[in-house]
Amino acid sequence: MPDRSRVVILGGGFGGVGAAKKLKHADADVVLVDEHDYHTFQPLLYQVATDLIETSTVGHPLRDLFHDQPNVAVHEATVNGIDMENRKVSFKEMAPETYDHLVLALGATVNYFGVPGADEHAFPLYTLPDAMRLRKHVLERWEAADRDPGLIDDGALNVVVVGAGPTGVESAGALAELYRTNFSEDFPKVPQDKAGLILVEAGDAVLPMFKKSLQDYAKKALEKRTVEVRLGEVVEKIEATRVHLKSGEVIDAHTLVWGAGLQANPLAQGLGLQLQHGSRIPTEPDLSVAGHPEVFIAGDIGWITDQKTKKVLPQLGSVALQAGEHAGANIARRLDGKDTEPFKYLDKGTMATIGRKAAVVQMPRGRSMTGRTAWLGWGAVHLALLSTGEAKARAVLNWVWAGFTHERPGRIRVDEDE
Amino acid sequence: MPDRSRVVILGGGFGGVGAAKKLKHADADVVLVDEHDYHTFQPLLYQVATDLIETSTVGHPLRDLFHDQPNVAVHEATVNGIDMENRKVSFKEMAPETYDHLVLALGATVNYFGVPGADEHAFPLYTLPDAMRLRKHVLERWEAADRDPGLIDDGALNVVVVGAGPTGVESAGALAELYRTNFSEDFPKVPQDKAGLILVEAGDAVLPMFKKSLQDYAKKALEKRTVEVRLGEVVEKIEATRVHLKSGEVIDAHTLVWGAGLQANPLAQGLGLQLQHGSRIPTEPDLSVAGHPEVFIAGDIGWITDQKTKKVLPQLGSVALQAGEHAGANIARRLDGKDTEPFKYLDKGTMATIGRKAAVVQMPRGRSMTGRTAWLGWGAVHLALLSTGEAKARAVLNWVWAGFTHERPGRIRVDEDE
Repeated sequence: MPDRSRVVILGGGFGGVGAAKKLKHADADVVLVDEHDYHTFQPLLYQVATDLIETSTVGHPLRDLFHDQPNVAVHEATVNGIDMENRKVSFKEMAPETYDHLVLALGATVNYFGVPGADEHAFPLYTLPDAMRLRKHVLERWEAADRDPGLIDDGALNVVVVGAGPTGVESAGALAELYRTNFSEDFPKVPQDKAGLILVEAGDAVLPMFKKSLQDYAKKALEKRTVEVRLGEVVEKIEATRVHLKSGEVIDAHTLVWGAGLQANPLAQGLGLQLQHGSRIPTEPDLSVAGHPEVFIAGDIGWITDQKTKKVLPQLGSVALQAGEHAGANIARRLDGKDTEPFKYLDKGTMATIGRKAAVVQMPRGRSMTGRTAWLGWGAVHLALLSTGEAKARAVLNWVWAGFTHERPGRIRVDEDE
Repeated sequence: MPDRSRVVILGGGFGGVGAAKKLKHADADVVLVDEHDYHTFQPLLYQVATDLIETSTVGHPLRDLFHDQPNVAVHEATVNGIDMENRKVSFKEMAPETYDHLVLALGATVNYFGVPGADEHAFPLYTLPDAMRLRKHVLERWEAADRDPGLIDDGALNVVVVGAGPTGVESAGALAELYRTNFSEDFPKVPQDKAGLILVEAGDAVLPMFKKSLQDYAKKALEKRTVEVRLGEVVEKIEATRVHLKSGEVIDAHTLVWGAGLQANPLAQGLGLQLQHGSRIPTEPDLSVAGHPEVFIAGDIGWITDQKTKKVLPQLGSVALQAGEHAGANIARRLDGKDTEPFKYLDKGTMATIGRKAAVVQMPRGRSMTGRTAWLGWGAVHLALLSTGEAKARAVLNWVWAGFTHERPGRIRVDEDE
């Protein structure tokens, strides 16, 4: 008697979780492996970094997501290698797994494009530890400047944010609120004009993927919130306390947030496949890998083309989730003896928030929103996507509370290794 | 013109915060220094360790507590030395402070009483990092056992809790709920009878400071929740995966929670004072130090006698808070040219919770409560004491949510140093 069909899913982000969910009724054992025990709600990472919400609103136990799905086993382990010829995945901490179908949803890592000093000094914002590190560093710099005011003139409180995509814009906006409301009360003796926030962007607009009117709104909204927007500037070198621009200018800043680019998980490079820009794995219309119909790709590791528009899709949570669900559904179809279907992305709109009551939403067919309406819509959409009722309730509480009082949940640095 | 009077408060726990609050209207500059940027609500640490509430419900920004008190400056720094002759405190990270009055509220550290292996392997539960480390360790052991079921027979999931005071009882009870509800769902393949919880106590009762009927109730409530209560047993040696008892028995357990004793902050030993048991600093009736009327003691670092009953008070949050407030009030009195007053402790009752709907409350004059009523009373009292409206709202949300759903906020391990 043959074993039950086995699906291995690598990665517990939007792509991997989406795929596993769609295999609920499939006649298959599903093994989902992630290097952490949690799923990360990445669109809100900047809010963890700026203390607007709690770590546990954004990181949710992976096992908790599959209590109602007995055919899914979750393991925490790190992938060592993927042998597509023998349909086998090896792990650092546990025995290898063989598969009949594989979903590769291993995400991305930050891409510094070779900028010297970035590896050592830049703060990326792709993972939950990234967000916690940035938060801790900013708080630590303020405490240090409180003890030694000479640090203020050295730029200890200045933050340079690189890249005016959603990550950079949302981080800069949220830092401005943290600085101008909370820190101005926590550190009443620090002159706020010595705590600068500078958004550096190589292109000629903020939020390049949005339409012109939204770009203009976002830029003005940032500037109104005291963020200095520097377009057409490129970072050349990063030191612990200085940021060097190609123009020759040197900015005194002890913090640099990198929101300027991703590359696929390095495991993509070991598969013997021809890769696309950013080491992303090209996909067939049904999201499988050319020559490997049993391997599907989802999320930021993939070079995924919308089969409706024929456009390559950006590395966004909504794309990852839909691609993951599609990959899972295609495996389920195949296990049912049916043909797979091509992936068509359903654009529900793209959003970015600049601050309290300020956001931009670009909807399909040219429609858009800004300001308070967009901000409320942004809140509603993200709430709807949070994985559990409790995370939703906590996020609502945090947001409503902060909206009325400017109080933030954490604003403390707890070092568990001390 | 002489400078304004200067009060230095060392420690931002219940004692230090209580003292600073009482100096709100005093004609003095108050400097409050803690080695962290947060105040810890210690009575709920075991809930952080077992994931019932969030880190940020228990750790609150110290600066936030004094926004309405412009005569208080908060600094994050570590005390290097206290020179009582020259009224000067030196710090590791900042310039020294001189004082007219000093409040010593530096708390305690755990006391292992020389048990071999405790330093390396025991998990204390006195600080917020302690709670986070324990939480992380327990979660990690379950993930490891999921990957390698052989670890289950090695005792990876067994926990020995040492000491049946409130810390030990509350930890054991909360671990039982975490194990039997959440982990039984998260790890459906792990046999729960291989995940034991053993409470080891040298004396002949749990909760020795409570009256007999409450002790009996607490023991039964623990046992009903699958905690094995071992009275009259003493831990002799601790290894990473084994606990040796004096009786010769060896328990396979990868986790040992130490709830068995405190000693005063080691800084107490450098003051040239005659110390009491556990290195605690003896206090005069008004909480000052003999021979140093300008130095006051509050909290776990002190050997504090209730001037009403003449009994030495235990190292409890409620004692620390009242002593801190009394010390602050006495300094304010002296600055007003008045005499200091002796410290009288107002006993509002002692509580310990064993689990959902199970707690014991011992009130003054022999009254007591158990069960659901006590549990609700316990919740109400702790809520009332949490430092801000937001912390309260979050705690309520977490408790109510967990009460209905058994869902816990975190249950994930985020390693920010990865």
